[in-house]
Amino acid sequence: MAVGPGTLPEFFPVAGVKLGIASAGIKKPGRKDIVLFELAPESRVAGIFTRNQFCAAPVTLSRRHLAQKAPRYLLINTGNANAGTGERGMTDAIACCGALAERAGVSPEEVLPFSTGVIGEPLPVEKIVRALPEALANTDENRWAEAASGIMTTDTRPKGASRQLDLDGHTVTISGISKGAGMIRPNMATMLGFIATDARIEPGLLQALAVELGEKSFNRITIDGDTSTNDCCMLMASGQYGGPEIRPDSPTLAKLREALEQVYLELAHAIVRDGEGATKFVTIDVAGAAGQKEALDVAYTVAHSPLVKTALFASDPNWGRILAAVGRAGVPDLDLNALEIFLGDVCLVRNGGRADDYSEERGQAVMDREEITIAIDLKRGDVRETIWTCDFSHDYVTINAEYRT
Amino acid sequence: MAVGPGTLPEFFPVAGVKLGIASAGIKKPGRKDIVLFELAPESRVAGIFTRNQFCAAPVTLSRRHLAQKAPRYLLINTGNANAGTGERGMTDAIACCGALAERAGVSPEEVLPFSTGVIGEPLPVEKIVRALPEALANTDENRWAEAASGIMTTDTRPKGASRQLDLDGHTVTISGISKGAGMIRPNMATMLGFIATDARIEPGLLQALAVELGEKSFNRITIDGDTSTNDCCMLMASGQYGGPEIRPDSPTLAKLREALEQVYLELAHAIVRDGEGATKFVTIDVAGAAGQKEALDVAYTVAHSPLVKTALFASDPNWGRILAAVGRAGVPDLDLNALEIFLGDVCLVRNGGRADDYSEERGQAVMDREEITIAIDLKRGDVRETIWTCDFSHDYVTINAEYRT
Repeated sequence: MAVGPGTLPEFFPVAGVKLGIASAGIKKPGRKDIVLFELAPESRVAGIFTRNQFCAAPVTLSRRHLAQKAPRYLLINTGNANAGTGERGMTDAIACCGALAERAGVSPEEVLPFSTGVIGEPLPVEKIVRALPEALANTDENRWAEAASGIMTTDTRPKGASRQLDLDGHTVTISGISKGAGMIRPNMATMLGFIATDARIEPGLLQALAVELGEKSFNRITIDGDTSTNDCCMLMASGQYGGPEIRPDSPTLAKLREALEQVYLELAHAIVRDGEGATKFVTIDVAGAAGQKEALDVAYTVAHSPLVKTALFASDPNWGRILAAVGRAGVPDLDLNALEIFLGDVCLVRNGGRADDYSEERGQAVMDREEITIAIDLKRGDVRETIWTCDFSHDYVTINAEYRT
Repeated sequence: MAVGPGTLPEFFPVAGVKLGIASAGIKKPGRKDIVLFELAPESRVAGIFTRNQFCAAPVTLSRRHLAQKAPRYLLINTGNANAGTGERGMTDAIACCGALAERAGVSPEEVLPFSTGVIGEPLPVEKIVRALPEALANTDENRWAEAASGIMTTDTRPKGASRQLDLDGHTVTISGISKGAGMIRPNMATMLGFIATDARIEPGLLQALAVELGEKSFNRITIDGDTSTNDCCMLMASGQYGGPEIRPDSPTLAKLREALEQVYLELAHAIVRDGEGATKFVTIDVAGAAGQKEALDVAYTVAHSPLVKTALFASDPNWGRILAAVGRAGVPDLDLNALEIFLGDVCLVRNGGRADDYSEERGQAVMDREEITIAIDLKRGDVRETIWTCDFSHDYVTINAEYRT
């Protein structure tokens, strides 16, 4: 089950970025479970990583390598997260990077490892190493769609986004893929995003964009509030678009940022739409906050409330549950009589209770839709934050309760 | 569905505390939906109230009255929470207190109102006022069991606890009732607890006990993390046990505190056992914390993780989910390699990964039980906190999704 259309876009190839695919047989024989990104020299990479303290070995190693050298390869395996694997996990991640580096003629620090799949099982290093020649042999700029499928674990569909834009007469291409369906899929370590462009972007700016855009997109979605040990989102820039380097003061930056943001949002939203058991795609928009923290506290408290989420599943405009969630979000001195809550364009709460012009029929009409916005105006300031989530269905329980049976 | 035996205890009557019951027909004709506590003069009352900012009108009024005078009556109605009802809600709560006060010959400030039931509907004041004579006419010290049923909303069973103990040759009695099944039942404003004793307790100490014991019991349970707008827990002391006033330095205090704590815990645990769709009663014990906040952050993050809760429902010893929840609890510099996680007496996690001596069979044997302890030792200090929760089942979704259909 998933919300809305799930067709992959037509991917534009990104000059300087090749993808290789192979089958290591990590979980199932024949399944494409290895994806390589091969980056042209001079490429630059930035990224953001999980805030879970128990991050997986490949996350720790990717951070370290990224701080040491400009990467030439990203090595992704699915089927095994190499998380909760103790010291051996780090040894295994180092071994995979070393094997790829040797065969590709680069140094091990130029390889970033990413793993997704089951937690707590040792990484099958030999299988991965045996598959590397196949992946290296078939790298090509036109394998984005295969790569989108190659990084899936229990996602119900591949996720991708692609854009071209003109920057002062030079065509810039942006393509990206993502995976993830719960913040931690049953026993799975989940969210990965890889976005590449041929734009030439000044390194500090690239890192700033990776943080800013990740914050606005992948860090604003939640399925169940569980943060995976393996989440990573990487932004790669090959620099081959033919135009000048884009810097913080470049007039072309605004347009590039907008296009990148669209790709980030599409990829992040695709994860929510494919949320475990999701039947609704829900936007939670908190306005009128006095600060960012309180805006996000309110938004996430509503998004994580099992009572709100089950009401969304039931298409039940149960405004009391939304109101009660706002009230327990920990915002000091919140004025119940001032705030307003809207479901789509229908006002649910005003003057401390159900809005006078609210009717069950009007609320129901909004709730019956597949895409729903809950808008909360705290009337305390001018800070606004938006996050995205999905509902909580019988299928969520089924997927997560019966995963190993 | 509920966990474990649910039989009410034999209630010991509490001298100086009478209970009256009546049927106001708030939701269903004939249903006993009004419960009165009538307290002898000189009784003392203390309590704790919801931290939800949008507390219901009766909560605000009870707080106010409690600060003004020693209460003589507690007036509880079920079927309507008088929450999210704006200014009218306060007028209605005042009207009910006034009507009872007039008929009983006390001042309105000597009445504390409590409401539980549907949020956002106006309180049917006339129906309640019409039922007061019946309740006043039948007050009796032996109606605890009826009162336990009278305060239920969608609870599947009444909840009570009762104890007698000897304090220096004087028999002290403690009896209590509670209600609640989700932290907010579908559209319901939920948790209420009423504990009475005939001990004579110094007022400051009574308030301190109400806070301390409430904190250790009702404030350490969670079904779904949703805090109701109406939660209250009141401790009443009639002072008629015949012994001396118990003060902070009384040698009898320790024994009394222990007995009160048992009653508080039984009543609080009864709410978890009757949690919406609950099939497991789960104790989460966090030891070795450097402070209380981090102990509770870890405990609640595990208790609220939908992935942990669905694994408990499935009796699946999925240690990766517990580990990942601990890792995202926001504790700074947590050392994955130091901590230990136990399921019952079986070690799941040690040295950063699955414990060497763990086996699926041993984990499964613990998970198959109806009562399960998850013990987490952070190895950072000597603070320990225990909380109680239940699992997350298909029935939880059914109950909360299909409540209004």
